[in-house]
Amino acid sequence: MPDRPSYHLTPEEFRRLGYRMIDWIADYEQRVADLPVLSRAEPGSIRAQLPAAAPEKGEALDLIFADLERIILPGITHWQSPNFFAFFPANTSGPSILGDLLCAGLGVQGMMWATSPACTELETHIMDWMADLLGLPPGFRSDSAGGGVIQDSASGAALCAIIAARERRTGLVSNESGCDGRLTAYASTEAHSSIEKAIRIAGIGRKNLRLIRVDERFAMRPAELETAIRADLAAGLMPFFVSATIGTTAANGLDPLPEIGRIAAKHGLWFHVDGAMSGTAALCPEYRSIQEGLERADSYCTNPHKWLFTNFDCDCMFVRDRAALIQALTILPEYLRNRATESGAVIDYRDWQIPLGRRFRSLKLWLVLRHYGREGLQYHIRRHIELAQHFAGQVAAHPDFELALPPPLNLVCFRHRGGDTANQAILDGVNNSGKAYLSHARLAGKLTLRLCVGQTRTEAGHVEAVWQLLQQTAEAWQKSQEPGNGGEKDDFNG
Amino acid sequence: MPDRPSYHLTPEEFRRLGYRMIDWIADYEQRVADLPVLSRAEPGSIRAQLPAAAPEKGEALDLIFADLERIILPGITHWQSPNFFAFFPANTSGPSILGDLLCAGLGVQGMMWATSPACTELETHIMDWMADLLGLPPGFRSDSAGGGVIQDSASGAALCAIIAARERRTGLVSNESGCDGRLTAYASTEAHSSIEKAIRIAGIGRKNLRLIRVDERFAMRPAELETAIRADLAAGLMPFFVSATIGTTAANGLDPLPEIGRIAAKHGLWFHVDGAMSGTAALCPEYRSIQEGLERADSYCTNPHKWLFTNFDCDCMFVRDRAALIQALTILPEYLRNRATESGAVIDYRDWQIPLGRRFRSLKLWLVLRHYGREGLQYHIRRHIELAQHFAGQVAAHPDFELALPPPLNLVCFRHRGGDTANQAILDGVNNSGKAYLSHARLAGKLTLRLCVGQTRTEAGHVEAVWQLLQQTAEAWQKSQEPGNGGEKDDFNG
Repeated sequence: MPDRPSYHLTPEEFRRLGYRMIDWIADYEQRVADLPVLSRAEPGSIRAQLPAAAPEKGEALDLIFADLERIILPGITHWQSPNFFAFFPANTSGPSILGDLLCAGLGVQGMMWATSPACTELETHIMDWMADLLGLPPGFRSDSAGGGVIQDSASGAALCAIIAARERRTGLVSNESGCDGRLTAYASTEAHSSIEKAIRIAGIGRKNLRLIRVDERFAMRPAELETAIRADLAAGLMPFFVSATIGTTAANGLDPLPEIGRIAAKHGLWFHVDGAMSGTAALCPEYRSIQEGLERADSYCTNPHKWLFTNFDCDCMFVRDRAALIQALTILPEYLRNRATESGAVIDYRDWQIPLGRRFRSLKLWLVLRHYGREGLQYHIRRHIELAQHFAGQVAAHPDFELALPPPLNLVCFRHRGGDTANQAILDGVNNSGKAYLSHARLAGKLTLRLCVGQTRTEAGHVEAVWQLLQQTAEAWQKSQEPGNGGEKDDFNG
Repeated sequence: MPDRPSYHLTPEEFRRLGYRMIDWIADYEQRVADLPVLSRAEPGSIRAQLPAAAPEKGEALDLIFADLERIILPGITHWQSPNFFAFFPANTSGPSILGDLLCAGLGVQGMMWATSPACTELETHIMDWMADLLGLPPGFRSDSAGGGVIQDSASGAALCAIIAARERRTGLVSNESGCDGRLTAYASTEAHSSIEKAIRIAGIGRKNLRLIRVDERFAMRPAELETAIRADLAAGLMPFFVSATIGTTAANGLDPLPEIGRIAAKHGLWFHVDGAMSGTAALCPEYRSIQEGLERADSYCTNPHKWLFTNFDCDCMFVRDRAALIQALTILPEYLRNRATESGAVIDYRDWQIPLGRRFRSLKLWLVLRHYGREGLQYHIRRHIELAQHFAGQVAAHPDFELALPPPLNLVCFRHRGGDTANQAILDGVNNSGKAYLSHARLAGKLTLRLCVGQTRTEAGHVEAVWQLLQQTAEAWQKSQEPGNGGEKDDFNG
């Protein structure tokens, strides 16, 4: 027998290490603004510092704090930096971190109501809170025929919606007999890649996904959707699913939900709406118009793990007909049978999602909503949009820069007027400086810079600083292009 | 402007609440053994205590500690109780909780190498550690053509394997043109429900999943697999996928991997192996024989979030040909393009999984492996198996009880000799007592009790106590059946 039979941390050790980890995270939040946002690690550089094999005997966990500084932090791209403006944000907050900690400490499985009733009931309840906070159609509340569920991501929500739509359209035959090769789906050319991925996973096939063209605001052209559906019907195909987006990834385009919803209803398509980031704006009544037309949607998702201070993963998915979702995804082996399930009085969320197991994810959202209140959340959303709009105004007023489109919310798409080469050089220069991190898109064929304001601690000073940095980088690039400075240097680096 | 412009927790508030949450979890671990294991909540009782709407103004987070006691804890089925013997375990540990806390604090997205190199490289590295610890075939290591990835669950791993298998079998046509209705898949009647669910999701259709019969040890009969494949081939169908299990859910059956692998290879099927719980036993060389034949597998998964002290979600999936997995799941929109990806020198794990986003899940496994070391983990696995085997011996020696089969590892399937009514009464009596929680299965048509020893803090005394409780409950039931005691009372309750 070993001299320390349990090997477990003692309660005292857990407390001491726990306090230390809390301190480390509190300190991280304080210093993250000063760390290079985009990691400068070279491929393989992290692994090269790790031992080839797991230790034979246990090590003191205090050792990991030194490794965090030496090995891990240099390999982190700091999504929690106030200077992170890339992609969509994945912001967190103190209350959310504490909620995730609590989730880990309780360690329950919420696959069924019976395996922890509080895990299911708090989730249903918080989804209703969210439906009300966002001003969603009442048909998405759990006291209607619909309801909400936390998914891992908008990808998971899209896949569940597609499976439910497939079942409904084929009269509950798809699950039994496999895909009907005639099913066709629709989304805009600007829809998130997760729609195409889910269409592939579900066995529909990429060729059966029609990508509808967008207008100059990167919103789906509904007349072209109608044309595409009619053409498919005429060809004997079975249109079954359309996905619209509130805030596309590249340009934050807002698809016209009322028209798309009418077309979907007319032809019996499942109407899914993806509001992954921008849906959060509906917490403020003055932006709620982005949801106009959502009352026709069969399913909707928005991600508090993007712009609502809640750790990934936390995608809020709402459906108008929960029976359709459950019918498509349910499975009940003998070893999961229990009285509560058979009574029909409870929700078993395993039937609303792809995997069986599930964490107690509503805890973190509960803590966020209670800590900030509606007022605090609205304050930050408004502030982010205000900062983005102010930035956009400066870009529009500058002779060397231009907006790619008027930014509807907190994402600004813009360019230097010097063309793709200039914009690539400016992007690289800013990102390599470590002072800020932006990402890009290609809009109307042109390389376009994206600045998304949504980080928890992004303030006016951070946005002002990145605007200065962009101008300086552009000027330096322009200088490098002048005769005698080497012309178009490939290695321009800001 | 509000009087408290940031609304965020101050660092001091975060520290204070963080310490308090750490203390709450440390206390929870100490007292969980004394709480009723199976929640006694009635449907709706948790929601009834929650306010109808989210708060308008933020509340002090200290309030949640009272709500945890009053509202949440009574609705928890305590998966972390040492008296939890139901299903498969989902055990956690102090190091894992701290790792999950760190993951929440860093808040990074690991969808691509570039979005946090450390998140990708630590994961690849720890998967190699796991491959070595478990003695997996070298073809599952990242320095071969294969490699490991952390999935959300065995369900996710199975779905990814099926998508990759589907693509390979149809010559990369499925993703493009949709499912071929002739594809057929194979698993045993005892395979986990996630296989059937994934087959449905992937558009294969449940009728195209052949459930092969099992032998008296609940292991797949390979000769019947061969027969089924031949029949399908003769009918012009396209067998493409077979899933075998190391430790089935109901009875811990061990499918004969060598024979299944040979059949799969002969007919060109993708060979997936699900070792969700029992795969962990391979950390001990004396149990490694359960993996015999795994060298022919195309994919394998085992879940540290079941029996390796690591919080859900943490499923370790290994593939022999990572190119096949990536080919099936890759997607690269312009806004995710980056130099590291295009260099081909890095792994982008988004192409190994269903969703796009991903957490830094390897942190918790890293902390677990470092804290316990191989020695500490082996100690606990051996101890759990020893306790289960000792319990099985007592059951076998008791005149009123019998084993359903000799338990191969840490799961004991047994029955009272009084038939289904007796066993249901005993199960309900034990579970309603709050002193322990067992689940059931139906084996060879008979209601069977399952006792799985795998909780972090389950010791000999807990297993001894549940054995006493089972005997007492059985005796009380027998008494209630005697003439004059009311006969078969429906409301027998232990």
